[in-house]
Amino acid sequence: MQMHKHGGDIYSQPYQIDFSANINPFGMPQSVKQAAYDGIEASVNYPDISCRQLKKKLSEKIKIPKEYLIFGNGAAEVIFSVIGALKPKKTLVTAPGFAEYEHAVRVFGGEVEPYFLDEKKEFQIERTYLDQINQDIDLVFLCNPNNPTGQLVEPEFLMEILKRCHQCGTFLVIDECFNEFLEDPRHYTMLSSVKEYDNLMILKAFTKIYAMPGLRLGYGVCSDEKLIEKMREMVQPWNISVPAQFAGVAALEEDVFVEKTRRWISKEKKWMRQKIEQMGMKVFGSRANYLFFKGPKNLADVCREHGILIRDCSNYAGLMPGYYRVAVRMHEENQKLISCIETAKEK
Amino acid sequence: MQMHKHGGDIYSQPYQIDFSANINPFGMPQSVKQAAYDGIEASVNYPDISCRQLKKKLSEKIKIPKEYLIFGNGAAEVIFSVIGALKPKKTLVTAPGFAEYEHAVRVFGGEVEPYFLDEKKEFQIERTYLDQINQDIDLVFLCNPNNPTGQLVEPEFLMEILKRCHQCGTFLVIDECFNEFLEDPRHYTMLSSVKEYDNLMILKAFTKIYAMPGLRLGYGVCSDEKLIEKMREMVQPWNISVPAQFAGVAALEEDVFVEKTRRWISKEKKWMRQKIEQMGMKVFGSRANYLFFKGPKNLADVCREHGILIRDCSNYAGLMPGYYRVAVRMHEENQKLISCIETAKEK
Repeated sequence: MQMHKHGGDIYSQPYQIDFSANINPFGMPQSVKQAAYDGIEASVNYPDISCRQLKKKLSEKIKIPKEYLIFGNGAAEVIFSVIGALKPKKTLVTAPGFAEYEHAVRVFGGEVEPYFLDEKKEFQIERTYLDQINQDIDLVFLCNPNNPTGQLVEPEFLMEILKRCHQCGTFLVIDECFNEFLEDPRHYTMLSSVKEYDNLMILKAFTKIYAMPGLRLGYGVCSDEKLIEKMREMVQPWNISVPAQFAGVAALEEDVFVEKTRRWISKEKKWMRQKIEQMGMKVFGSRANYLFFKGPKNLADVCREHGILIRDCSNYAGLMPGYYRVAVRMHEENQKLISCIETAKEK
Repeated sequence: MQMHKHGGDIYSQPYQIDFSANINPFGMPQSVKQAAYDGIEASVNYPDISCRQLKKKLSEKIKIPKEYLIFGNGAAEVIFSVIGALKPKKTLVTAPGFAEYEHAVRVFGGEVEPYFLDEKKEFQIERTYLDQINQDIDLVFLCNPNNPTGQLVEPEFLMEILKRCHQCGTFLVIDECFNEFLEDPRHYTMLSSVKEYDNLMILKAFTKIYAMPGLRLGYGVCSDEKLIEKMREMVQPWNISVPAQFAGVAALEEDVFVEKTRRWISKEKKWMRQKIEQMGMKVFGSRANYLFFKGPKNLADVCREHGILIRDCSNYAGLMPGYYRVAVRMHEENQKLISCIETAKEK
């Protein structure tokens, strides 16, 4: 069987619990579900091509002018439209990193330059990263926290990276799709730099935190309004479905749910991390809602035999067999995963 | 107020009845709605990037190999991905015609060559069309029935066009998004030529006939499997939402609904056409679920005052103020529209 490029592929294999997609274990909030239902009723009409309600609500919530916002059919579409609009020749990505950056870069005729994250440095971005940003680099994709490692870049260093990009005429996309799962999300977001730096885009998703990956909704924030317009032109006008727009509006009210999620992830992740480390396996980064670790080579197979899907990270650039990413889920599910890892270890 | 490029923009103005979008007046079938609801429940997971169930069902229904099918976030996305994959320098489109062909062509750096439909010839495609297809034309978009005119090209002539394209190394996309509303849809579809001609793509939408434009689902059929693969690469992997996939599977069972729709459109359109013609206005083509006619210049404004939206076609290439497109809806609604047109005429 050919290996799927991403986690979350529950369709090509039987399974009971999916740890391979990093989705909020509490599921979709009831209000979001209800709004999506209402969106079905309203789907006899075309979607609003300007996403007016959603844009207004989001603009008020994050205190960013409406003109700086662009929505996508999932954050993945925003990745494609920003690359389609910029057509970068050279794009700096981390290895390992999210595969869709490279996919989109290649579609639009560019090439990627990898910044290899070093296991000896815990896969942390080092100061050498700055040296790789120069005038030949048109675009930088930086995922913070990174996927799959869950490593974080501190805001002071992010600011240095942003300034370096600005000097070099390089556009910087910071992918903050997992920001809400951090213990201190406000400390790490660079949203407040968007107004001052028009070479910065913050990428965000509703997918993970509101557990609505099947509905598809993400967005970008950037003060270069001409770029936003160009990105808008890159895709067909009706790209955000009515259920996604309705669900998005409702989701933005769910602050209590988000806070509850954050506390849960923090507590449960500690327990899982301890268990995995007690088995003598090395856990790296893992600051978001997933754990990234080095385990036995048979781990994914053993898990699959028990109906458990995990993300075998061997197909990431910069990684080899033996690295895994698992989502933090509900306790009983996590217990099953931990038992599985124990079984694999003993085999 | 800037004029919206398309019909169906119910969000920037108050309205009671929308005749500007050509949607099935019976609304979404109950089974489709229920499936979309189930899709919401299943949206805590990512969509199947291969649309396996939907592909299997459609393949069986239309008797086309699965490998020939590609789905889009609405047919509009398929337009973008086929153009993105082919990157045509010169594309032949009819004027008037659907604006997204030109939009997508320009996004990927190409230019369009218009074939002007002649009012004196009832906006029918003439034999001169063949002369405009030559080796300089990389791509031809032919909408059959055409939007906004509702004119049809007969299958014998379509075959001549297809053969001419084949000789010239030209790729032909026949947009059959309104085929199901015809009185004799089988007579007009070119689906059966897909196997023999790998320079042909048939474009189809779930949007109109199943009244689900807000859910976004369309597809393309083509026997050039390499092109299909390339189109797949042009977009992010999770482009078809879970509710759209579920709704699509259910929709393909709704043959009785489609047949009922067809009978209704046929009967009701005759009545509307007669009424409009009795007012001395010229109706053209109109073989699908909409009427295209020449009316008083104040018509759209008068209708808007009565809460009725119609498609003012003055912004179509090849048209001037005074041309309108109206959908065929339920009888009481159509009566209101007809009264409005009478009022406008008297003003």
